[in-house]
Amino acid sequence: MNQFSPERSLALDLDRTDPLSDFRDQFLIEDPDLIYLDGNSLGRLPKPAASLLQEAVTEGWGKRLIRGWNEGWFDLSSRLGSKLSKAVGAREGEVIICDSTSVNLFKLAAAALQIRPGRTQVISDVLNFPTDLYIIQGVIDRMYSGHRLDLMDSPDSLTIPEDALSELLGEETALVALTHVAYKSAFMYDMAAVTDLAHRTGALALWDLSHSAGAVELHLNEWGVDLAVGCTYKYLNGGPGSPAFLYVRKELQEELLSPLWGWFGTREPFQFNLEYEPGPGLQRFQVGTPPILSMLALEPGLDLILEAGVPALREKSLRLSEYLIYLFHEWLEPLGFQLGSPPQADQRGSHVSLRHPEGYRICRALIEPKEETRVRVIPDFRPPDNIRLGLAPLYTGYLDIHTALSRLRDIVSGELYRKYSPDRKTVT
Amino acid sequence: MNQFSPERSLALDLDRTDPLSDFRDQFLIEDPDLIYLDGNSLGRLPKPAASLLQEAVTEGWGKRLIRGWNEGWFDLSSRLGSKLSKAVGAREGEVIICDSTSVNLFKLAAAALQIRPGRTQVISDVLNFPTDLYIIQGVIDRMYSGHRLDLMDSPDSLTIPEDALSELLGEETALVALTHVAYKSAFMYDMAAVTDLAHRTGALALWDLSHSAGAVELHLNEWGVDLAVGCTYKYLNGGPGSPAFLYVRKELQEELLSPLWGWFGTREPFQFNLEYEPGPGLQRFQVGTPPILSMLALEPGLDLILEAGVPALREKSLRLSEYLIYLFHEWLEPLGFQLGSPPQADQRGSHVSLRHPEGYRICRALIEPKEETRVRVIPDFRPPDNIRLGLAPLYTGYLDIHTALSRLRDIVSGELYRKYSPDRKTVT
Repeated sequence: MNQFSPERSLALDLDRTDPLSDFRDQFLIEDPDLIYLDGNSLGRLPKPAASLLQEAVTEGWGKRLIRGWNEGWFDLSSRLGSKLSKAVGAREGEVIICDSTSVNLFKLAAAALQIRPGRTQVISDVLNFPTDLYIIQGVIDRMYSGHRLDLMDSPDSLTIPEDALSELLGEETALVALTHVAYKSAFMYDMAAVTDLAHRTGALALWDLSHSAGAVELHLNEWGVDLAVGCTYKYLNGGPGSPAFLYVRKELQEELLSPLWGWFGTREPFQFNLEYEPGPGLQRFQVGTPPILSMLALEPGLDLILEAGVPALREKSLRLSEYLIYLFHEWLEPLGFQLGSPPQADQRGSHVSLRHPEGYRICRALIEPKEETRVRVIPDFRPPDNIRLGLAPLYTGYLDIHTALSRLRDIVSGELYRKYSPDRKTVT
Repeated sequence: MNQFSPERSLALDLDRTDPLSDFRDQFLIEDPDLIYLDGNSLGRLPKPAASLLQEAVTEGWGKRLIRGWNEGWFDLSSRLGSKLSKAVGAREGEVIICDSTSVNLFKLAAAALQIRPGRTQVISDVLNFPTDLYIIQGVIDRMYSGHRLDLMDSPDSLTIPEDALSELLGEETALVALTHVAYKSAFMYDMAAVTDLAHRTGALALWDLSHSAGAVELHLNEWGVDLAVGCTYKYLNGGPGSPAFLYVRKELQEELLSPLWGWFGTREPFQFNLEYEPGPGLQRFQVGTPPILSMLALEPGLDLILEAGVPALREKSLRLSEYLIYLFHEWLEPLGFQLGSPPQADQRGSHVSLRHPEGYRICRALIEPKEETRVRVIPDFRPPDNIRLGLAPLYTGYLDIHTALSRLRDIVSGELYRKYSPDRKTVT
């Protein structure tokens, strides 16, 4: 990392020579003094999404009315899924957009357990995002009352040891359900290796790609991945609560049955038959009428990801995070901060967590400074002490990082966070 | 019905004296020659929804970014649910907006069966919307493998005989799950009487209000209704695929557990606990991050419903449908049309189905006339022969009906529909 230096001029240089720098102009960035490092939670607004939605509302809903369903809405789930499949290493027909990540997890976990009858063990880890643990425990409760999800532990709160999975895996394992990139530490699994390990005992592997899609390279087919879900409002920039995606490997599609037998999943929804007949391929994993406006809004973000290309995005993301970690060592480590993410690039997704006992108040001071500064920084806080800095390679610049870390340094060295209450009042 | 006459001047008079006529101006109606009678499938665009969405995208997502969650998005499900509760006769805290109607049905049906252990019978009817039958059969399949949903038959394809339910109800009945207003015939149950009958055997009653909310009077509390769901894109004018609603009577809320244990349903989502703890009240029926843009768009429609008031809406809806039925008898019955809806007002919702063996081709001729006429009429078609005419009292006028029925008369008397293929190609 000794190619870096702490001077602001280096940040400017790095931005100038960034091959992806033009993509920043594709996003609405109203206030240059607002440093947004929360694209891992809600991605920025791609400019074309605003006009597209305006058109969809006035021309589509307003003037085409019900005819909109025959003019693109009905196929939207699969058409956008097809675009996304190119960013995750899947084939045509292996990805659809629908429902929320939680609902999609429910469908796939329940479907997976049904084709591994008699096997009652499901494995996950303590770093997983809570909704994944809740949803899957809920599925187990209904199917194997009394059984508990088996969680791999994280002795360092950052990573899961390499041998943890093989210690738990056995002939009773039905499913290994993990998040590829952990939401707090950004720890990233070796998806190919873990999937292979699961397969060797006859278990299926289900991955949550919420913190991966659009930021790290994914080769779902090549890695033999069975099932995956993920949200579209983080690095894919789909807008607040934009519908999620799900992936099922082609060879499994006809074998799996969704527990949610909705009319959008039946073979011929507009025949209105009384009997449910699972539709072909992934159609069976659609359920009810999808929220069209929220779904339409996610296309411009997908287009930008495909235009930039995931390998280039990953390359920039790694360089951004290495620069951030360099400045952390220079400025913040001496002030009591700890690195809350794995230092090795191949074990890390696209955000960096910095831990500090006063993390929550520091976040408040970053977001709503009470002293005279135009600069505000938006990270997010994850209890107990994680300040999460998201690096969205389409629009995050090196100067953003330089500015944010200088603010962090000033806030802690000047004890500016003491003006803020330690009581958490906000929801995010 | 002898207060009506077939002259166009009467339609103009009726529109002029309509106490709700001003509401029509609140909707985008670009082309006066496009008669829209499909508001029972997708309601028109309330003008304020367009500007509200523009603002939500640019100012909310674009500029407030993640802070939007603390500034109204997080509570949106319950805040909009609270508005809707006023239109369905429910108390504060008994309605939330979330997911799709199908997903909500799944949650409530599964939760209901769990509190009626040992009872394996679920009753519905053949007039129910297919997704209701599919979803509930899917729930039964998982919980009571081999059992089948019991369906009340409809000898006339229009209504369900009054004694059908008591013939099926017994001590093994867990749940009576019905749609209040049938999607084809608009047959409307006596919700209070049916609910009471179900309760007498210890069963719960779950109602789908998709074709009721915003169009017919609902007194869910007064009628003792346990559970209900419904969509918001029909008479509530929420936009294509806008999120659905669910209702749970207060006294049942703490007893019921959703099968979908999502993070938005846990007591403190932003504590990120590893263990799921069902949130208080209806919060536990939320699941994943909701599609904010689609949800925001539905508020203007709700406001208009509340402003007009459901009793006034129902009164106008009935008068519209009586006028329509009058013109049907005058003009269409002699041409081979049959009334596909109950003639009695208290057994009918807010649309009228007209049946004709050439129904599909007639619909095509209405929508895309091949002869020289500026007038186009949008109804929808439901197999095998239903031409469904939706009467949305906020914006449907008497002249709309007069024009639409004259077109129907001309199309059939002139055999204009013969220019159209009988092959159904479109999805809706």
